[in-house]
Amino acid sequence: MQAKLFGTVGIAGIGLIGGSLARDIRTFGLADRIIGWNRTPRHAERALELGLIDSATDSLDALTEQAELIVLAFPVNVLVETLPALLAKARPEQIFIDVGSTKTALAESVKDSPQRGRFVACHPMAGNERSGPDAAVDHLFQNRFTLIIDAEKSDLDALRKVQAMWSTVGSILAEMDAVEHDQTAAFLSHMPHVLAYALARSIRVAERDQVLNARFAGGGLASMTRIAHSPLSMWKPIFRQNREFLLEAIDDFQRNLAAFRNAIEADDEVALDDLMR
Amino acid sequence: MQAKLFGTVGIAGIGLIGGSLARDIRTFGLADRIIGWNRTPRHAERALELGLIDSATDSLDALTEQAELIVLAFPVNVLVETLPALLAKARPEQIFIDVGSTKTALAESVKDSPQRGRFVACHPMAGNERSGPDAAVDHLFQNRFTLIIDAEKSDLDALRKVQAMWSTVGSILAEMDAVEHDQTAAFLSHMPHVLAYALARSIRVAERDQVLNARFAGGGLASMTRIAHSPLSMWKPIFRQNREFLLEAIDDFQRNLAAFRNAIEADDEVALDDLMR
Repeated sequence: MQAKLFGTVGIAGIGLIGGSLARDIRTFGLADRIIGWNRTPRHAERALELGLIDSATDSLDALTEQAELIVLAFPVNVLVETLPALLAKARPEQIFIDVGSTKTALAESVKDSPQRGRFVACHPMAGNERSGPDAAVDHLFQNRFTLIIDAEKSDLDALRKVQAMWSTVGSILAEMDAVEHDQTAAFLSHMPHVLAYALARSIRVAERDQVLNARFAGGGLASMTRIAHSPLSMWKPIFRQNREFLLEAIDDFQRNLAAFRNAIEADDEVALDDLMR
Repeated sequence: MQAKLFGTVGIAGIGLIGGSLARDIRTFGLADRIIGWNRTPRHAERALELGLIDSATDSLDALTEQAELIVLAFPVNVLVETLPALLAKARPEQIFIDVGSTKTALAESVKDSPQRGRFVACHPMAGNERSGPDAAVDHLFQNRFTLIIDAEKSDLDALRKVQAMWSTVGSILAEMDAVEHDQTAAFLSHMPHVLAYALARSIRVAERDQVLNARFAGGGLASMTRIAHSPLSMWKPIFRQNREFLLEAIDDFQRNLAAFRNAIEADDEVALDDLMR
């Protein structure tokens, strides 16, 4: 059992990530009390039923008013819209973190805030295609990387507490700057998600025309298209915010796919060997 | 326990599929004896050590000479090269099956054989990225489809015995003709494998340039590129044999991906909504 880090923790957005973090904060005794707010009120009610939070607030302002650590587990477009105003009202002892998948636009939105130091940008890489409070599980972050972005822009006390929290719940900590993060994420996460969505469309056509369903491919196809079931409301803003790097990554993939296509069309065994190795 | 179906079963190619089938044949008591042959002798030795087979033969001819059911678990190019000659020597009580992922070329190779009826073309859809005798597991085929291809071209006694075997090991049986099979497989299996290989190349570039490894994307990326670790010697012949349909499927995917790329480039939210839904 880790020493308590926070008085009240406020979770704004109690889904897969926010809800799982709430579970771990309770399990490891990291806070006195966990409160929650959700844009969709029935998710807040469900989070109460599941015991993820001790109480729910009526508004995001009420949540941030009462909490010492505020976890913003929103889609990335909502983060950019809300964080600057929330941070402007931050008290000196408060800490704000996000858990979003893009960081450049968010960093830009608060770069001139006098309270910038109270914000620690986090990317726990533990997402999957599930969403909502029922998706929350224990130990989701165990042995997963959590990236701290632009760590030097956070106040040291805030940074240390947030690092201690992620370490306690089992995450492996790493640091990056926002641009490097978004470029890497474009290749290793966002572009693959675009592929999964595009593949799901190609397969839907095949299924309509043909006899069999997706079980045809055994486990391989299921695991490739699974992530296309991730919520649209989460991924569309990620694609839009990380547009430049995402286009770069898609172009790179398209070049590689075209090389495969050409080798297959030419029945060029040597080229196929080179590409597949 | 199912009644015994076969005297001696010969497994030619004792890897993931051949070895797992050997395990199940033993578990369910479907044969008196299981013998094996492998192009790579150390795999045959390993299969003996693991108890997958009772004995190993020195040649494929020796195997087919001794067995009542001969399971050809080879890469699809080797199947086309070997099946016609093996079938030409088939005795009336013998049954040959394959477990390959393409069927049109194979069907063509034996269509004029007087012994065509002794061959039952099978596609158990239970592959994964593992290979070799150590990849063999119990109950691999449980609740997976096994497709019987061009069933009407097999002798009824052979067909019934082979169907009984797959049913006993837990497979769900379905039937297709060879062309329909290869077209469906192109979309639902072979094209997705090409994507996984191309994605693995794009990611390798990103990893060299950047800090983090493939754990960046949590589980999503790992499951998408996992199948790119499937053996080259198995997949390259599949791509080559199913060239026409595979190119069709790649073209379809490329059109869908281009639509995503254009919507992202234009920041067209409505188009993205349509594509992602």
